Amino acid sequence: MSLTVVGSIAFDAVETHAGKRDRMLGGAAVHFALASTFLAETRVVGPVGDDFGDAEYAVLRGRGVNTDDVEHVAGGKTFFWAGRYERDVNVRHTLQTDLNVFETFEPKLSPAARDADVLFLANIQPDLQRAVREQCAAARFAALDTMNLWIDIARDSLVKTIGTVDCVIVNDGEAKQLTNEVNIVSAARAIIAMGPRVVVVKLGEYGASMYTADGVFGLPAYPTAAVVDPTGAGDTFAGGFMGFIAANPDAPVDDALLRRAMAYGTALASYNVESFGTERVAALTAEEVNARVAALAELSRFDPAPVELRA
Amino acid sequence: MSLTVVGSIAFDAVETHAGKRDRMLGGAAVHFALASTFLAETRVVGPVGDDFGDAEYAVLRGRGVNTDDVEHVAGGKTFFWAGRYERDVNVRHTLQTDLNVFETFEPKLSPAARDADVLFLANIQPDLQRAVREQCAAARFAALDTMNLWIDIARDSLVKTIGTVDCVIVNDGEAKQLTNEVNIVSAARAIIAMGPRVVVVKLGEYGASMYTADGVFGLPAYPTAAVVDPTGAGDTFAGGFMGFIAANPDAPVDDALLRRAMAYGTALASYNVESFGTERVAALTAEEVNARVAALAELSRFDPAPVELRA
Repeated sequence: MSLTVVGSIAFDAVETHAGKRDRMLGGAAVHFALASTFLAETRVVGPVGDDFGDAEYAVLRGRGVNTDDVEHVAGGKTFFWAGRYERDVNVRHTLQTDLNVFETFEPKLSPAARDADVLFLANIQPDLQRAVREQCAAARFAALDTMNLWIDIARDSLVKTIGTVDCVIVNDGEAKQLTNEVNIVSAARAIIAMGPRVVVVKLGEYGASMYTADGVFGLPAYPTAAVVDPTGAGDTFAGGFMGFIAANPDAPVDDALLRRAMAYGTALASYNVESFGTERVAALTAEEVNARVAALAELSRFDPAPVELRA
Repeated sequence: MSLTVVGSIAFDAVETHAGKRDRMLGGAAVHFALASTFLAETRVVGPVGDDFGDAEYAVLRGRGVNTDDVEHVAGGKTFFWAGRYERDVNVRHTLQTDLNVFETFEPKLSPAARDADVLFLANIQPDLQRAVREQCAAARFAALDTMNLWIDIARDSLVKTIGTVDCVIVNDGEAKQLTNEVNIVSAARAIIAMGPRVVVVKLGEYGASMYTADGVFGLPAYPTAAVVDPTGAGDTFAGGFMGFIAANPDAPVDDALLRRAMAYGTALASYNVESFGTERVAALTAEEVNARVAALAELSRFDPAPVELRA
């Protein structure tokens, strides 16, 4: 039940309607791992600079994240992202992106990281994702995320990489852009045609849907009235989803398992947005996670008994 | 189990990626009634002109809609709307709106229409909606829809009318605009504060959610890859939803009943988009409706059994 995630480790500056933070722990691999460690031991592979210190490691290790594969680049600075969300948090403006040590990142995986049972390739350049996938050839289940930038400038490589994984986890805009489809269902089918057998489409405040050969699964988002900061929600979702698969090493990754994984991803992501950055998930308890999964099951339950209709 | 709907009866000209129709039966009350009659006897209150003839009545009566309260305005022309959808059917352009007989419409309800057990006020001017609500004071359950125009130019009247109904059924943009909230959950709560005890928010391809004092219910849309024409989907949803309530005259309108109503609304709306205008719903069978309700229940089902987490 070992899980390896490769992706960004960052400092974020974020401003939302609820306040601001000038410098806080962030990055896709960090958000992912803080969620996935609830379910499975997780190794983070990613670079940091000299400015990444004990306080940041303490957050990761406090949740039991394995940081042995975090690469310290001497003399370097950690990836930095600054953004501002409008009152409607669906509208985000990137104010600053300093790649720093991430600019020359070439993932080097320890033997333990390569032995991962489950692998998540967070949003990085698709050539690098594919190189990592080749190093983790034995992984039982591998998934990737991506972003509009790679669809724009490295689509061929991305499609090639997609062909090497079991699952793609993207948001609806990315799914449509990648496939040039305007309908989510059609877009998901087009991605499956590229190779993966599972496509998860994240819909933000509308929830998430999953497409496989067995059909479609849809889950509304947990109804959160007070979204403080959505940064990292998608990675937190992926952490819960992949963590659940890693937590069940002997179970077939079938439709029933994947549906439960969707629920854990959705539950964890719903907590992520309640505070800035990693603050809420870092303080989360196991009971809270299971309670929200139970609430999600209740949220969409109804009696499907057929009624007599007027023909 | 009688249901009265007051609203537009129209001819629509529609162009989508799938083709075009120059003149077909449409209007909110028509789409609503073709769906609701699967569940309860439905009277349509609305005006038509001399151009509304046997062919149109045949579609309504073919589904068992009661047309006794359709008002024929001698010398008038029926409401006409023309629109074009982009390849992404979420983007709609109105090309022409001829109110015609609808411009001077003042709803006159027969005693039978006034005796309705359940009342739906489709999108018309809110003063008119309130006048109808007063004529149907005994209705056990009343709901209204509205549109951005009335929020813009008649908000005070609309809020007053909202205070007289049990339920508001709007799309997410309207809910946010009406309440000046940016979050659907907050917007729904703000509408409940205006008086209704049920708020249904239609989310198009993302499904629908319902807010009551008992909490939140969310249902994904049925995954339709081939959307031909979304015109009337929201009214068809309302027809299924209100029809289900009307079909259960002796049952309390509680959370369990409302959830089943949401499923029937969602199922019927999913069929509506599969063909132009009323074509698909007018040809629908009872078995197809119940089959899709069952499919919807399966769509969002997962095992919520808690798992042991790493604390």
